[in-house]
Parts: sequence; C-alpha cells; structure tokens
Amino acid sequence: MDDKTFAAVVKDIDEHAKKYVERLREAVAIPSVSGEPEHRKDVQRMMMWTKKRLEAVGAKVELADVGMQTLPDGRTIKLPTVLFGVIGDDKAKKTLLIYGHLDVQPAYKEDGWNTDPFHLTEKDGKLCGRGSSDDKGPVVAWINALDTLHRKKVPLPINIKFCFEGMEESGSKGLEEALTARKDTWLSDVDFTCICDTARLSGKPCLQYGIRGLCYYFVEVSSSRQDLHSGDFGGVIYEPMKDLCWMLAQLTDLEGKINIEGLDDFVSPITDEERKLYEEIEFDPEIFKNNIGVPALTVETKQEILMNRWRYPSLSVHGIEGAFSGVGAKTVIPGKVIGKFSIRLVPNMDPAEVDRIVIAHLDKLWKERGSPNHYRTIISHNGKPWISDFNDPHYAAAARAIKRVFNVDPDYTREGGSIPITLTFQELTGKNILLLPFGGPDDMPHSQNEKIDMENFIEGTKMMAAYLTELGSL
Amino acid sequence: MDDKTFAAVVKDIDEHAKKYVERLREAVAIPSVSGEPEHRKDVQRMMMWTKKRLEAVGAKVELADVGMQTLPDGRTIKLPTVLFGVIGDDKAKKTLLIYGHLDVQPAYKEDGWNTDPFHLTEKDGKLCGRGSSDDKGPVVAWINALDTLHRKKVPLPINIKFCFEGMEESGSKGLEEALTARKDTWLSDVDFTCICDTARLSGKPCLQYGIRGLCYYFVEVSSSRQDLHSGDFGGVIYEPMKDLCWMLAQLTDLEGKINIEGLDDFVSPITDEERKLYEEIEFDPEIFKNNIGVPALTVETKQEILMNRWRYPSLSVHGIEGAFSGVGAKTVIPGKVIGKFSIRLVPNMDPAEVDRIVIAHLDKLWKERGSPNHYRTIISHNGKPWISDFNDPHYAAAARAIKRVFNVDPDYTREGGSIPITLTFQELTGKNILLLPFGGPDDMPHSQNEKIDMENFIEGTKMMAAYLTELGSL
Repeated sequence: MDDKTFAAVVKDIDEHAKKYVERLREAVAIPSVSGEPEHRKDVQRMMMWTKKRLEAVGAKVELADVGMQTLPDGRTIKLPTVLFGVIGDDKAKKTLLIYGHLDVQPAYKEDGWNTDPFHLTEKDGKLCGRGSSDDKGPVVAWINALDTLHRKKVPLPINIKFCFEGMEESGSKGLEEALTARKDTWLSDVDFTCICDTARLSGKPCLQYGIRGLCYYFVEVSSSRQDLHSGDFGGVIYEPMKDLCWMLAQLTDLEGKINIEGLDDFVSPITDEERKLYEEIEFDPEIFKNNIGVPALTVETKQEILMNRWRYPSLSVHGIEGAFSGVGAKTVIPGKVIGKFSIRLVPNMDPAEVDRIVIAHLDKLWKERGSPNHYRTIISHNGKPWISDFNDPHYAAAARAIKRVFNVDPDYTREGGSIPITLTFQELTGKNILLLPFGGPDDMPHSQNEKIDMENFIEGTKMMAAYLTELGSL
Repeated sequence: MDDKTFAAVVKDIDEHAKKYVERLREAVAIPSVSGEPEHRKDVQRMMMWTKKRLEAVGAKVELADVGMQTLPDGRTIKLPTVLFGVIGDDKAKKTLLIYGHLDVQPAYKEDGWNTDPFHLTEKDGKLCGRGSSDDKGPVVAWINALDTLHRKKVPLPINIKFCFEGMEESGSKGLEEALTARKDTWLSDVDFTCICDTARLSGKPCLQYGIRGLCYYFVEVSSSRQDLHSGDFGGVIYEPMKDLCWMLAQLTDLEGKINIEGLDDFVSPITDEERKLYEEIEFDPEIFKNNIGVPALTVETKQEILMNRWRYPSLSVHGIEGAFSGVGAKTVIPGKVIGKFSIRLVPNMDPAEVDRIVIAHLDKLWKERGSPNHYRTIISHNGKPWISDFNDPHYAAAARAIKRVFNVDPDYTREGGSIPITLTFQELTGKNILLLPFGGPDDMPHSQNEKIDMENFIEGTKMMAAYLTELGSL
C-alpha cells in the first residue's frame, strides 16, 4: 500500500470512527455468553450478526453445524455454529487465516460493574463493556478494517479466511473436530494464521511468538470412609490433610523453584537473539508489581520477570477439594482430600515426558512421607507449549504495519498462559502463526468493567488494515 | 428403692414400652430444627409439648424468654424459650439438675435416609428418626421414667430441676445468659447435674467424667489484591498457598505429634487409678478401625487409642478458605488463603495459655519461612476442657443404677469432643456433673438414618428411673 493510499485509509477510518464504535456497540449489546445456556441463542445471534457484516465486505460465509453439547444437568443443547468465511480465491495469492471468537464471559451489574456490561459506554477515552477487548473488539476491528479497504477499493494482495467460533470462553467445544475435518480441504491452502485474542504487555505495540503449555495434576489422599469429628477422632487418625499439605509444600522452594529433578533439562537454552529481545521490551516491574498489589516478586529485573513468566516452567498450587473451605470454623477431619497443582510448560517440554517425571517424583515423595493412607495421582489435562519463529517474514510484515501506524518497532513478547487453539492451527496447517495483541494490559478481560481504549480500537483498526495489505510481500 | 418396688417399676416400663415409644414418635414428628428459621415455630411447639408432658408427671414449668436472634441475612427472629422445670421443693432434699435439648439437626429424605426422618420407624429393633438418639430419645426417656415413678407412687428422694433448651444444635444461643442470670436464684440449690446428651463408647454402659476443650485458629496468608491467572503470573509470585501448606505441614509430625513446644507441659500426669480405668474399658480397636474405615491408626493398643482421644491434646487441620475447592481444574493463584486448624485441649490446658504458645510458635514459623507475603493469625474461639471426680458419690449412685438394670459395672470413659454447656454448669453451680450416655456408639446422630436401639431406649428408661431413686443416698 503506497503512502497516498495508506493516508486515505487512515483518513477513512478516522472519519468512520463513530460508525465503527457504533458497530462495536451493536456487538456488545448481544449478550453472547457461551457459559450460560440461556444465552446460547444470543451466541448464535452474534454469529448471524457477524456473518452479515462479513458478507457486506465481500466474504462468502458458511455457518458450520458442530453438533450438541451435554450440560452438567444432563440436558443437551445445540453448540453454536462455527463461522468459516472466505474473501478471495486467487490461487496465485497466499492465504491468511484469521481466528477470533464471538462469545464472552458472564457479566452482571451486581458483580461490581459501574455501567451496564452489555451497553458499550464511552468515558474518558475508554469503551467499557463485556467483550470490548476480549474478543469482540478485535473481531469488529477486522470487519471495520475490511470495510474501509472495501469501500476505498484497496486491492488485497492475499486471500483471507475467517474462523470465528462461539465457545472459546467455554472450552472451544466442537472446534477442534470441525477444524480437523477440514485439514485437507478448507485449511489446506492456509499459508499463515493470525490470532487476535491477546493483549499488549504495556502501552507499546507488540507481536507475540510464544505461549506456555500446561500439565495439571490432582493428588488424592484418603483415609476414613467419611469425614470425622475432630473431637472424637483427633489424635488417632493419620489425617489426609496433613499428608497433602506436606506433599504440596515439597513441590517448590520459597522462591518457587520447582523441586522436581529433570524438569529443567527440557527447557530450551536461551539464544543471544532471544536475550536481546528481553532487553528491548517495554516493561516496568514497579508498575507490574503495583498493578497486582504484591509485596514482592520472586525475581527483580525486567528480564528475569519476563523470562520467568514466559520461558521458564512454573508450578502453582491452586487449591484443595474435600476439605472445609467455607467461612468460619468447622471441626472436621476430612476423609478424602484432592490437592490441585499445575506446571506451566515451555519449549521443549513435552507433556507426556513431564507427566512421567512428575508422577515418579510424587510417588517417591509419598514413599518418603511414609503415610499408611491411600494415595493416588491423577493427570487432569495438558497442553503443549508453543513457540513461533519471529524471524518469519509474516512477523516482519506485521512489524511494518505497526511501524506505519504507531511509528515504533514492536516488542517481541510471549504469553505466559495457554491458548490451546494456537497449537491446533499449528498442527493442522504446519505454517507460521502470529499472535497480534490488540487490547491494552489494563483492559481487564473476564473481570468487571472490561474496556478497550478508544485509541487502541481505532489505531488497531488501522494496524489491521496495514497488516492485511503488507502481507502482499510474503 | 427396694427390690420389690424396682421389680414393679421394671414391669411397668416394659408394659408401657409401646406407649413410651409412641411418645418418642410424637416428639420426632415435630421437626424442631433449630438451624432452619422456618422451623423455629416447631422448636417452640416441641418446647410446649415437653412442658405439657412434664406437668403431667408433677413438674412446675416456666418457659423463659431469652430474646431475639439475628440471622445472617439480617432478619431477627425470636429465640426458642428455655424450659426451666421443677419437681419437688423439699429443703431437706438434695436437688438434681437434668439438662437436655429439644432441637435437632436438619434432615431430608434426599440426604440418603431410608425412611422419613421425621417419622419414627421401627425395624429390626431399631427406632429410626431424627432426634431419636440426639437428644429427644433421652429427654422422652426422662419423662417416661418419671411417668412410671409417678404412677407407681415411688417417692423421689430428691428435688429435680430441668433445663431443656431448643438451640443446642445451633450454638445454644441465649442459654448461657439465661443460666448466668439464675446463678444465685434458680441454680443456687442445685447439688449435682446430669447431662444426657452423649452416647456409649461400646455396647457396654458407661459413665463419662471428662471432655476435651478446643482452641481454633485461622492462619491467613495473602499477597496479591485478587486471585491471579497462573499462566500470566506463575513464576514471579510468592504464592500464599505454598506458604500456607508449608506452615500447616510443620504443625505435626506424621503420627500427629504436635510440634509446638511447651504444650505437653500442661497435660496433667496420669494417675495409677486412671490408668487402671483404661485397662478395664470395653473397647475393641479393630471394630473401631473398621467402623471408620481407616487403613491404620497412629497408635495401636486400646489404652493408647482411648488416651489419645480423651486425655492428650490433638491437632487437626480442617481446611483452607480462599483457594479453589471445587471439582475439576482451575488455573488460579489464590491471592488470600486462610488455613484452619484446631487443638483439642485436655486438663490442665488453659485456652489463654495455649493461645499464647501457639501464636508465638506460628509467628516463629513464619519468620523461619521468610516469605515476603502478608501473614496474620486469628484466634477463632475456644472452650475449656472439663474433668469430673468419678469417685464422687454421684457417680457411684449412677453406677449402682446401671448395675441394677444391666447387671454390669459401667466403664468410666470420657468424650473427645467438646460440650461447652458442661463447663457452664460446672462454673455456675460448682457441683459435681455426670455425663450419662444413653444411645449406642453406632446411632449416627447428625447423620443419615439416626436411630436408637429399642433396647437402649427401654432399658435406658429403667436406668434413669433407678438413677433418680438411687440419688437418695447422696
């Protein structure tokens, strides 16, 4: 896109800012909460709404049926369809796949929202509403960017495919099967994938090239058939809670270093190139610390903090099932308790290998404890870590788009959490994937008063428009 | 009571067994659940029912208003009255105070009852229904015993006072104040107290002369303002759960020995007389172990088990508030967690002294841990241990009553749990107190299918009649 065309695109987006925010307001007004079955029809309504908007910018859209869902109460309800859209079918062009989701987390005014969560409210340059940042903001921005390019008749140098789902906040049920079934057909000509479902690390634009995986474990200790009165039985029972607390306390040292031999051997060594990245990233440890309100972090420097969050494994103890967890006092000796912990995986930790080492370690620990109680470890679930080649021209194209809009070179960052669908796209397409953060670090997705900054929403739309045309160089 | 009179009393009770069970059926049918405000009127109805039955056997009864209760939702409702009854006012006679309670724990068929919990159902010699053992069975048995003595015109060698409350299962609200207000009046001529709210240790009748006290503690550790995503923050946070599990794991060793220096110094040394009691008690460790279904106990012999349950302190870890306690997996780093543990106290452990030692120990432990997180210990509540002189003639009189009915000498046992009202009577009257177990060890009070054995109910009524007349020797 030459500078003149780009200037016209920027001008058009600015001129349509009000209309584009209005479009986000429409989307936010549809309470497409996938976790609440009574809103399932709204998720599907949001799907239809998106279909119509994409068709208006030239896409051909299929809403694919992906079957039924069985609810915990035994009822079955229809899963939302998955939206498969296409713009362009030129065999001479490369094909970009864009992923997004149309469902949102539950939200109630009573939770502590200052405004109606399903009415996009503008204040002090912030657009507040459920889904404004995660993930309706980015989805609507794609539509808006295409709208401008479409009206300005800017030629797209690529074919675009869309995969928008309505169950991301509820485990993406049905999606993996639908994608796998399309591996050799619909997905076969995808050359690169862009996922726009994460937020920036700081105010500065960034590109994300990695996410951590996860191995989640349950440690179950049981003794008596049922809970016992601590007055009647305290003093003669080997209490499962004591065994479990002891087990959990052995897993890490004070600073969080994992006491499981062999885990660190998997961790890929850091390269000079990667190390250099950390130095350049815009990130202020003090702001980070103050935002979450902790008295101290286990490491102090910017580099250490980011590496601990992204490129080293961590172990967290989440809680205990079966013991008294209410407010106040109860004098019970729980008969069976289940401790829950997980390990975040980084390249090149393979979940199966990690499982083997962790289970063996737990078994050894239990033997060391010497308790006569019943013990077992259960593997809950896992997900692989993912890392992308940030030297890929795909990243360079996105970086150019950012430079053009924001006049800065983006930081190259990772996500500490897991986005399992990334791995699915990686495995099914075998091609480069880019995580393109859109919202800000303080948007509070999933929480009260979720918002997106007006500036991120409009400048982000320009970034997307620039990115779509920059991909012509690939 | 001469043998002839006693034989007539026994015969009369046997002849009235059907009527006496019918009376229990009437009592069970009143759902006097003190914990459920919608049943408050039933608690009061049960109070009126009891008043009427006591009056029929010659008692003068006052139902004392003890004020209002504020519910957790802010509503206030009237507390049930407390029943103060009197039979006899002969200054030349000694006065026995009988305590019991008319309220019950909640019960629903859906909880797993085989029969309607509020319809006393007889099967295989068991009378099944809520309150049959705890504590309507004993209360009705007192009435039945008095009914027989009244009709047979057996003279009572003592005055009897009754204190029956309707809030025992909900913390005895209002009772202590009502009793304290009567310390120098109604309670002033009480010479001994009998509490019939516990169960036998085995099939063999026993008298209980001790209960353990309690000190309950909360250990709170907090770091971040709110729960954090373990993917985004795992690796840089000092996790409160890890600190707490470590703290809790330090409190005891594998066998439950309390690692808090100085606690054992308070424990009163065992006398030869007490040691001899343990040898004679009927108690089978194997049956005990199998009943609760544990793979092992921390001690093996009958004597050790009973002493650990009754005359040594024990520490139990009850649970953790604030951490994930649901089923399944959640990837959260809890921001604030509260560990709950308690220590059962035995003579001569004073709660205030124990608090001092425990808090100092926890503070020292926390220092040793070296975590930068926020920590504090909260004292929840406590209750003193209690022990009675089982050589008191009061116990001898009860033993003679048991010998007369069951033809065995009772075991002298203790309760491992706490019955705070015992301490209140002890402190207000300063006289001997006897716990007279009535139900069996497998009655399952508070649980599903609560029952009392027909034999315990009828033979227990005879025991009560015998006890009331035996007290003439005091």
